[in-house]
Amino acid sequence: MIVVMNLGRSEAQRDAILERLQTLGLRGQEISGVSRTVIAVLGNVFPELRDELSTMEGVDEVMRVSKPYKLANREVHLDDTVVELPYGVRVGDGHPVIIAGPCAIETEEQLWAAAKGIRDAGAHILRGDAFKPRTSPYSFQGLGVPGLKMLKDAGDRLGIPTVTELMSVRDIDAVAQYSDVLQIGARNTQNFVLLEEAAKVGKPILLKRAIAGTIEEWLLAAEYILNAGNPNVILCERGIRTFETATRNTLDLNAIALVKRLSHLPVISDPSHGTGRWYLVRPMSMASIAVGADGLMIEVHPSPDHALSDGAQSLTPGNFAGLVREVGKLAESIGRPLAAVPERIAS
Amino acid sequence: MIVVMNLGRSEAQRDAILERLQTLGLRGQEISGVSRTVIAVLGNVFPELRDELSTMEGVDEVMRVSKPYKLANREVHLDDTVVELPYGVRVGDGHPVIIAGPCAIETEEQLWAAAKGIRDAGAHILRGDAFKPRTSPYSFQGLGVPGLKMLKDAGDRLGIPTVTELMSVRDIDAVAQYSDVLQIGARNTQNFVLLEEAAKVGKPILLKRAIAGTIEEWLLAAEYILNAGNPNVILCERGIRTFETATRNTLDLNAIALVKRLSHLPVISDPSHGTGRWYLVRPMSMASIAVGADGLMIEVHPSPDHALSDGAQSLTPGNFAGLVREVGKLAESIGRPLAAVPERIAS
Amino acid sequence: MIVVMNLGRSEAQRDAILERLQTLGLRGQEISGVSRTVIAVLGNVFPELRDELSTMEGVDEVMRVSKPYKLANREVHLDDTVVELPYGVRVGDGHPVIIAGPCAIETEEQLWAAAKGIRDAGAHILRGDAFKPRTSPYSFQGLGVPGLKMLKDAGDRLGIPTVTELMSVRDIDAVAQYSDVLQIGARNTQNFVLLEEAAKVGKPILLKRAIAGTIEEWLLAAEYILNAGNPNVILCERGIRTFETATRNTLDLNAIALVKRLSHLPVISDPSHGTGRWYLVRPMSMASIAVGADGLMIEVHPSPDHALSDGAQSLTPGNFAGLVREVGKLAESIGRPLAAVPERIAS
Amino acid sequence: MIVVMNLGRSEAQRDAILERLQTLGLRGQEISGVSRTVIAVLGNVFPELRDELSTMEGVDEVMRVSKPYKLANREVHLDDTVVELPYGVRVGDGHPVIIAGPCAIETEEQLWAAAKGIRDAGAHILRGDAFKPRTSPYSFQGLGVPGLKMLKDAGDRLGIPTVTELMSVRDIDAVAQYSDVLQIGARNTQNFVLLEEAAKVGKPILLKRAIAGTIEEWLLAAEYILNAGNPNVILCERGIRTFETATRNTLDLNAIALVKRLSHLPVISDPSHGTGRWYLVRPMSMASIAVGADGLMIEVHPSPDHALSDGAQSLTPGNFAGLVREVGKLAESIGRPLAAVPERIAS
Repeated sequence: MIVVMNLGRSEAQRDAILERLQTLGLRGQEISGVSRTVIAVLGNVFPELRDELSTMEGVDEVMRVSKPYKLANREVHLDDTVVELPYGVRVGDGHPVIIAGPCAIETEEQLWAAAKGIRDAGAHILRGDAFKPRTSPYSFQGLGVPGLKMLKDAGDRLGIPTVTELMSVRDIDAVAQYSDVLQIGARNTQNFVLLEEAAKVGKPILLKRAIAGTIEEWLLAAEYILNAGNPNVILCERGIRTFETATRNTLDLNAIALVKRLSHLPVISDPSHGTGRWYLVRPMSMASIAVGADGLMIEVHPSPDHALSDGAQSLTPGNFAGLVREVGKLAESIGRPLAAVPERIAS
Repeated sequence: MIVVMNLGRSEAQRDAILERLQTLGLRGQEISGVSRTVIAVLGNVFPELRDELSTMEGVDEVMRVSKPYKLANREVHLDDTVVELPYGVRVGDGHPVIIAGPCAIETEEQLWAAAKGIRDAGAHILRGDAFKPRTSPYSFQGLGVPGLKMLKDAGDRLGIPTVTELMSVRDIDAVAQYSDVLQIGARNTQNFVLLEEAAKVGKPILLKRAIAGTIEEWLLAAEYILNAGNPNVILCERGIRTFETATRNTLDLNAIALVKRLSHLPVISDPSHGTGRWYLVRPMSMASIAVGADGLMIEVHPSPDHALSDGAQSLTPGNFAGLVREVGKLAESIGRPLAAVPERIAS
Repeated sequence: MIVVMNLGRSEAQRDAILERLQTLGLRGQEISGVSRTVIAVLGNVFPELRDELSTMEGVDEVMRVSKPYKLANREVHLDDTVVELPYGVRVGDGHPVIIAGPCAIETEEQLWAAAKGIRDAGAHILRGDAFKPRTSPYSFQGLGVPGLKMLKDAGDRLGIPTVTELMSVRDIDAVAQYSDVLQIGARNTQNFVLLEEAAKVGKPILLKRAIAGTIEEWLLAAEYILNAGNPNVILCERGIRTFETATRNTLDLNAIALVKRLSHLPVISDPSHGTGRWYLVRPMSMASIAVGADGLMIEVHPSPDHALSDGAQSLTPGNFAGLVREVGKLAESIGRPLAAVPERIAS
Repeated sequence: MIVVMNLGRSEAQRDAILERLQTLGLRGQEISGVSRTVIAVLGNVFPELRDELSTMEGVDEVMRVSKPYKLANREVHLDDTVVELPYGVRVGDGHPVIIAGPCAIETEEQLWAAAKGIRDAGAHILRGDAFKPRTSPYSFQGLGVPGLKMLKDAGDRLGIPTVTELMSVRDIDAVAQYSDVLQIGARNTQNFVLLEEAAKVGKPILLKRAIAGTIEEWLLAAEYILNAGNPNVILCERGIRTFETATRNTLDLNAIALVKRLSHLPVISDPSHGTGRWYLVRPMSMASIAVGADGLMIEVHPSPDHALSDGAQSLTPGNFAGLVREVGKLAESIGRPLAAVPERIAS
């Protein structure tokens, strides 16, 4: 930690800081520049120290030097984390995977039509939400546990793993029972109790970036899960909120490239939520794979113009099949072919 | 709802929309402008319709006409909501109130020193958190239930109501037992399960704006609480995230002025979190009262440079007393004098 | 400047940095923390050094320690700058001033009605633009030089100074001839050629903050003017662009409070552009004065619903007169009464 | 244009609007929904009407229906615009081009080393700035006209077109004389005088998106150029400003995909400025081509760690050659191979 002093700082102010550091078992080293003095803080710094030093007299600014996340940091964990799912699906091993399915589970027929469609098209994992965080209390809120059962059933029949959103500690047992991966949505990225409780379940966690979450906050949210003893975190970029309203969100591919460098955790991309417009899903899927994402999460609805949730950003199974073909070719050309799909179960 | 058609839309595309509306029990009225055609949708529109129509062929854009929040809307509830708290404290009746106390409850001594200080200075409500949502898992997470008990005890002894943050449905019973007002923090504004469960407790709820939450989303979060049967919502602006990093957040006073117009709910201002810098708390408190806020929420710590949480934005009791005096004078000059403080309890 | 090294940095990488610094006539001082090493750079650092060091092997981050603006920095210029205008109007001496007038000059009648109205209501300075930066080429672009002449004529007859926007170096001579203050608009805050050329005219410059300009960039834009030898800069906060679209911009009062601390230059507030809604102008004017602004800039139009530019954010002369009264009372109550208006010229 | 009335609107308020429209030669058509009434405005609407109607009594909101840009709109100009440059280079014909060179021209040797390097690696166009918009007045401001001459000389010798930034109307003649393409930088996207004056030169214009410019504003800036009679506009996405500071800007690839749909103009990507970090340039270049960009603009410096400007985001010629190879393979795999490079001039 570096303490930058004001130009007009007095010796007494400097001494007060050095003494305070000593009291805390730390040591301050003064460095006098041409115009300004800084104090380097040596020792095991704790997070609250920055705020404390900021309020002391004569201090202009306090700058952190260490990364606040430890377990998620690639500097101390060089190898890529690979998350293993049922049916032999692996996330993060250099072969991108495709997660697909409807935004919300609406009926058995709708889910099955979508699930079969995405399986036939070459998806690796089935998604579908039974608990929906909706901006308005008057919107469809999801089917709850009956929806979870439909999802598990579809995954079992098709022989692929499933992922669904966990909205609240209230629902942990139900979601953990029926889904292979627990998804933490963008509105819950900093719901720290939920992170810790979900981590304890022991299943892999797909952690979306918050709507206006910095990359550092995102990695610190992952750190909550890792620190609770669960190493199986899949990060998911899903678009950030910016001033631009022509797209629903701004899918931030810069973040994917940067996170691959800062952390060892796998990162996938969600162009459906990230753009909010079905016709941008294919180009942004191509770009996501090109930038190095470990996978895609795509909304597919058998009849998107009748969907109860997020229809505007869903593909038809037909569009989706075309996307998988195009993405597959691109993935091959950059030396990162898509993961093999689980073998079909003999029926 | 208004459907804007593409310039090159065909009659078949238009007819498909009109038919679809009819199927849904709605009616479409076509209006042909000089260059573009729009279709006005008549009937009881449901929220998912916008997405559905957006994906139909020939459609350029779908625009909402009605406000999505009903119960929070001033158009249908002209009178200001006044929230009644114990000890006769009222929020929203034209006389601003001041909520103050430490960010986190650390020890009995620290809480009591702060609580006594703010009571003597003229605050109306005591704040202090026992559950802290912290960006890093390595930061102080709060004392939990023992902290809640200290808070209640301090409120009882001083004869003023208390408010504390509720972080999770896991903690509802405990928080509801010990605190007069339940605070929903900025990271939980869109934790919809928490909103509904907290609403059922029946105590007033202080609802912060999300870190990058629009005003409409904020009022819709309030709508979840109102719709669950709890009319006692106090909104709290706490600064939004923008590109500017010279302040920790950007306290958005425009939002306070606008929400007073759009809604009947009381709105208070939190300049401590809103700016993140203790030396900006006083000027932004003055501005908050001048803009029409129904109250202030201020962090006060007996020794801010030793605080375990958010020390950089806390005032000393001495600074706080000066702030109350200045704010009181300003409030008087604009014809909205501060609320009377609860009478002291004879001891 | 502080160079933060990677955890895995080698001695060779460190030596390369120390040598490079030596070549540049600087000196590096190594400080080894518990986990990470930093190098403090000593000597006269130049701005490009940060980028250069960032690309060297083993470097994690390079942090600046000094403020990049020198002349605008309050640390080296403790006293408030007071800008003197004709007719004895002073900006920045503790007595707020009010600038008012139409957004665009449309006709002689319109300007005169507005000008007389604001003069009668107690404004100190007349505004009105003859060159308008408009998002669309199909919008009204201003009257040009004939408009400037009308403005000067109105200012002369009423005995108050004038301010108008300078959009381009093309128009410098004309604007400088007819206006007492040259306004640089938000789209030109970083038009550095314009800043330098305008500075040379020698008249005071009103410098708006850019639409998404940081406070540091704003002070550096002022630095261009100060560095060109013109000390008479009036800063003007006019709202920043954020994710919130319920208001046209987010008037950032935090910035006003902070700039008063960081710099000695006067800062005024423009709630008309800052909110884009006439009904928010009065509350945000009150808040601006309460937070410590040195003045207000308010759009007034005799008939705002027929305005050729920014009608939605203009007040009528009647509304404006009410605003001046309310603001005047508030200013008095906080010990910063409004500046005296120039004496009327006997006719 | 659609006028949304308040719930409590009166008949008199409605009539006032209808009458006002009639006075303006327009017609209003009233549509009564279940709860709210809207008025559709029919006739040739002018831009200022929205603001005017917004201020009328009883009006809640006024919504635009038409796109404000006409000439840049793909709806009325279906075919892609292809911009023809010297040496047979074409931008926008489905074969991406690569623009490369140093950020700032520093010396003849530096420029030549970079220019030769990028030509050998397969770039199509040489970039290099002689006029630099720099945030600080103390940074290197560019060589001016001597730099322009060096650029032209390098382009001539290598047989490829050149592009350089035009910062001010002051420099139009010089820049137009020496460069094949005039670049308008992000700080000048809304410098409307510059847009119009540059358009008149008749050379192609490379128009960057503003730092916080919406897509609509960007297309309206292009409209200024098109409307001045110059059809040769190349749009360039260069990263927008968001809350995220881990990257210098957020390169917005969503915008590239969307602009290809909204407009017929070619769009290229600038990952160097867009990310500000050299190690993100390659992945974001790959993603840009995958998303459908018509080209790339890449900073290359023979010795990036000694660059006088933006060194942190520059590649070495060696890194750049690798990038061109990778990008070339990817472009081929998606059926959009890179454009042929101009033939070498026999010497």
